Amino acid sequence: MVRDLIFKNRRYRRFFQEEPVSLETLRELVDLARFSPSARNAQPLRFILSNEPKNNALIFKHLAWAGYLKDWAGPEEGERPSAYILIVGDREISPTFGSDHGIASQSILLGAVEKGLGGCIIGSIQRPGLQAALHIPNRYEILLCLALGKPKETVVLEAVGPDGDIKYYRDAAQVHHVPKRSLDDLILN
Amino acid sequence: MVRDLIFKNRRYRRFFQEEPVSLETLRELVDLARFSPSARNAQPLRFILSNEPKNNALIFKHLAWAGYLKDWAGPEEGERPSAYILIVGDREISPTFGSDHGIASQSILLGAVEKGLGGCIIGSIQRPGLQAALHIPNRYEILLCLALGKPKETVVLEAVGPDGDIKYYRDAAQVHHVPKRSLDDLILN
Repeated sequence: MVRDLIFKNRRYRRFFQEEPVSLETLRELVDLARFSPSARNAQPLRFILSNEPKNNALIFKHLAWAGYLKDWAGPEEGERPSAYILIVGDREISPTFGSDHGIASQSILLGAVEKGLGGCIIGSIQRPGLQAALHIPNRYEILLCLALGKPKETVVLEAVGPDGDIKYYRDAAQVHHVPKRSLDDLILN
Repeated sequence: MVRDLIFKNRRYRRFFQEEPVSLETLRELVDLARFSPSARNAQPLRFILSNEPKNNALIFKHLAWAGYLKDWAGPEEGERPSAYILIVGDREISPTFGSDHGIASQSILLGAVEKGLGGCIIGSIQRPGLQAALHIPNRYEILLCLALGKPKETVVLEAVGPDGDIKYYRDAAQVHHVPKRSLDDLILN
């Protein structure tokens, strides 16, 4: 059921870095994005795949991780993503990309979860630096980076408490806790 | 498999309007969005549900349908959506909503497909009019409208031809054709 996949699709930030993700797998995941809705069917998204250590390291250093965990700068060597799918938008097709990249990301991540992988949608990217490092032509706008791998951490959902605090946190056992608002809080009528 | 659901999740614009979609079903679909990723876990999205004829008609007249079908203004009475989920963003939580509504829409639509329903993500909305008609406070920004129902049309995927035309079209038998770019066209490396 899609509910189970959505539930299992937590945001993972630590991985078994030694477990590779094949290019074939990445292509299968992009194929899920290909068949997902696109505004006016313009299909302006393009994808850059990475699953080799050197390229992965290049991408990694342009990403920001887990803003609420002030004492954690991101996964250490050995626990980093095994692969990335960088989503860019082709400005020659469309000046804006609306919801297309969000839709594509969810398709890719649900496909990844089904394959026993997990990941993280990262929007906090040093864009000019990454654009230069990967020699991405200016025609393409960097939208999102999907970090992928075999998850190495436990993520637990909690209810948001009376103080309304939605900041995720890590406990002493390194379990990651994520407060979620209630269904009645989300539905206005 | 999620691939099958993504493949079946075509953009439907004609429905068996007489087939109701229950509020309980709409709530289950919003619950899928609730457990989907949200930037900084801020969870700024809110949802307005509609499944009654009067309210549906109010929403319907603020939506634009199928821009490429110049001789078709949208589904006629009897073939209109049985329900809507309007996605709005709470400006008091976040000034922008990034990819959150795209992600949420894909979760909701995949859940709908699994339930034998189908729908359409509509971004072409007469926003000020709808905001006033539904008495939505200014605190909330209208982002997307998901039209839902039991699909009444056949949608066929095609490969984009050498001319690169991605406009969808309807044939004489009212079958809706959607050209999709190839996987190799989407992957830049």
